[in-house]
Amino acid sequence: MKAAILTIGDEILIGQIIDTNSAWIASRLTDLGIDVVQTLSIADEENAIYQAVNNLLQTVELIITTGGLGPTSDDKTKYALCNLFGGRLILHEESLHQISLIFSKRGLPLTETNKNQAVVPSSCTPIVNLYGTAPGMVFHQNNSMLISLPGVPFEMKEMFNNDVVPILAHLEGRREVVRYSINTFGIAESFLSDMLTDFERAMPSNVRLAYLPGPSGIKLRLTAFGNSRESLHQQIDNLSVILNEMLNPYIFGYNDDTLPIVVSRLLRERNKKIAVAESCTGGYISHLITQIPGSSDLFIGGVVAYDNSIKTGVLGVNSDVIATHGAVSSQTVSQMLDGVLRVFACDYAIAVSGIAGPSGGTTDKPVGTTWIGVASNKNQRIEHFTLGNLRDINIQRAAFTALNELRKLIHSE
Amino acid sequence: MKAAILTIGDEILIGQIIDTNSAWIASRLTDLGIDVVQTLSIADEENAIYQAVNNLLQTVELIITTGGLGPTSDDKTKYALCNLFGGRLILHEESLHQISLIFSKRGLPLTETNKNQAVVPSSCTPIVNLYGTAPGMVFHQNNSMLISLPGVPFEMKEMFNNDVVPILAHLEGRREVVRYSINTFGIAESFLSDMLTDFERAMPSNVRLAYLPGPSGIKLRLTAFGNSRESLHQQIDNLSVILNEMLNPYIFGYNDDTLPIVVSRLLRERNKKIAVAESCTGGYISHLITQIPGSSDLFIGGVVAYDNSIKTGVLGVNSDVIATHGAVSSQTVSQMLDGVLRVFACDYAIAVSGIAGPSGGTTDKPVGTTWIGVASNKNQRIEHFTLGNLRDINIQRAAFTALNELRKLIHSE
Repeated sequence: MKAAILTIGDEILIGQIIDTNSAWIASRLTDLGIDVVQTLSIADEENAIYQAVNNLLQTVELIITTGGLGPTSDDKTKYALCNLFGGRLILHEESLHQISLIFSKRGLPLTETNKNQAVVPSSCTPIVNLYGTAPGMVFHQNNSMLISLPGVPFEMKEMFNNDVVPILAHLEGRREVVRYSINTFGIAESFLSDMLTDFERAMPSNVRLAYLPGPSGIKLRLTAFGNSRESLHQQIDNLSVILNEMLNPYIFGYNDDTLPIVVSRLLRERNKKIAVAESCTGGYISHLITQIPGSSDLFIGGVVAYDNSIKTGVLGVNSDVIATHGAVSSQTVSQMLDGVLRVFACDYAIAVSGIAGPSGGTTDKPVGTTWIGVASNKNQRIEHFTLGNLRDINIQRAAFTALNELRKLIHSE
Repeated sequence: MKAAILTIGDEILIGQIIDTNSAWIASRLTDLGIDVVQTLSIADEENAIYQAVNNLLQTVELIITTGGLGPTSDDKTKYALCNLFGGRLILHEESLHQISLIFSKRGLPLTETNKNQAVVPSSCTPIVNLYGTAPGMVFHQNNSMLISLPGVPFEMKEMFNNDVVPILAHLEGRREVVRYSINTFGIAESFLSDMLTDFERAMPSNVRLAYLPGPSGIKLRLTAFGNSRESLHQQIDNLSVILNEMLNPYIFGYNDDTLPIVVSRLLRERNKKIAVAESCTGGYISHLITQIPGSSDLFIGGVVAYDNSIKTGVLGVNSDVIATHGAVSSQTVSQMLDGVLRVFACDYAIAVSGIAGPSGGTTDKPVGTTWIGVASNKNQRIEHFTLGNLRDINIQRAAFTALNELRKLIHSE
């Protein structure tokens, strides 16, 4: 079964935004055993949309479109689809109800423009949008299906997972696909690929290995295609056993695990609480932990001790230590850890101090110099890391490295 | 002059990588006054490449392709293009020389596979790749031109800037382009578009208005196309004057301004310092401010007071106030503000307390209930906001709203 993804919006064609929806949808369709043969981005113009969809209907059985469903006059998708699939524009009461709920919740009046978002072609089956105002639409023509989704990523993803997946799951002509990811941290991609040269050479031809690098490490994803789920699972199991042995010291989790998720799970399982003292990471570690639902069970709080007065005042770092060794030193981080354990009365602590850049570097402490400490009431570990020159990347790498250090400390106790 | 961008590679179609080349090239072409009418991603298959290029040659004058030029057997681009544009495969001596240089530098032997990268269709003008092993290729057919570039982003970008731009600069039919963005916060897209209905109707036909929503508000981008930069600037100036008058209360900045950038600029100009007390935003406000280089000039620090013990212990919030009014209340936020100003000895303070969800909601305080406070030593402002049901989005909305409230407070003093 062949599919195409069509993203609609001028902002993509002028390079204003990077189209992340296509990759996300392509990955989900691949998981469902549907072959994506092309992704296409076009302008939000009625004729362009009509032509593109009309051409795709000749070549694929499934078309997923995103975007062009906003309330403004520059959103043309539903008009183009109404021309192409026929019918007339009618009001979808259920969507109108949902839209009014959103506006009343925000205490805003419902304008004609908003109401108009609930208007869809009579030739489609609407999908109510629980997180925004533009409904999704499902159209059929001969043996092909088109599903139109909003362009706002979180609305699109919710609608895809809750409403589109159940529709696609019933389609015929899908291949079986089994995926399994092993998530590593602390080893460079080139070293991984060198270690895995023979492994890759020996892999069955129906299995693919992908290296997916990100701020939370490198995800190694195995994808097996075939007809019998059972035998695919067997293949993946055999291969993952080998990978687990080879890469053991670098593996922190599997599949959707991220370092914040893994660390939170370890703390919850042990009923332990954590607090954080951040300097160069500026609150990013706290943000990573509190992004996860239920984090209040295990996260007590944090201090962003950017100015030294906060390191001394709130965390009780000795000002002589800062004067002698500098704020970016193992001695300062050590006292930050003590301060966190005391002030926040927690079981585990993280403390980070470094020079994120671009300014602030010296000859003996260049930009990227970072001290990362983790502690329990029993142990304290402080490591020195030399990161790069890019502020954003340094903040991310310092934060995820700190979480990985904590993960190792918890496992060791 | 119409252009299309064609990215070639299976990894895009299975969602393994996000195609960032398209957005980068689209932005450069737009700046050069070339209209990108579509971007397309297809598999690295000879027939798919042949068909896609053949179709595009009928509809656009310029095609830029990336990818499918690697040394391995699964890179098909040059074979497909040789079939399509004619000629035979010949060795390009200059590229071979360049490739051998790279390998001798790395102290590696030159294999037949590597040598084969210097082989190109006789129907193209090759572009030597100074940063990798795959040469670029320029083809002509009738009035259309195709430029094939490597898929490795930094190789592609260097080749585009050094070799492709000079070629495109001589093309006829390019238009001048002038862009200007007005960045708003605190007004929904539908209300903006209602306010701007007449404005859009009255806009000159060579100017486009785009609504670009993001977590930092909605960016209104004016793009003017024409022949004389001077008159385009004049048009944009006239239109922006009108927009500035109509939308004044919602405008926080222009072009690349974000709320963290604008707030940081206001504080730096006034030589004022800020600190933050965060509950539901969990450190994200501190992260947004400290992401910006030089933030240590104006950001003293923050407390993530997730557990009530931190609100009382570190910020000195009265536990009776929490018991009586709850942690998510204007009374608690008011005392958090006082605490920040006192503990951090700063000029401005932000405090946020809310229910990010998905759990923690009650009938009188549902998920999304958020109190946002900003204060100086003279004034304190606390507002109630009802956000949505999604944790990530609530954290973002609360953080950017807080920054916008602070922006308004600073302006009012």
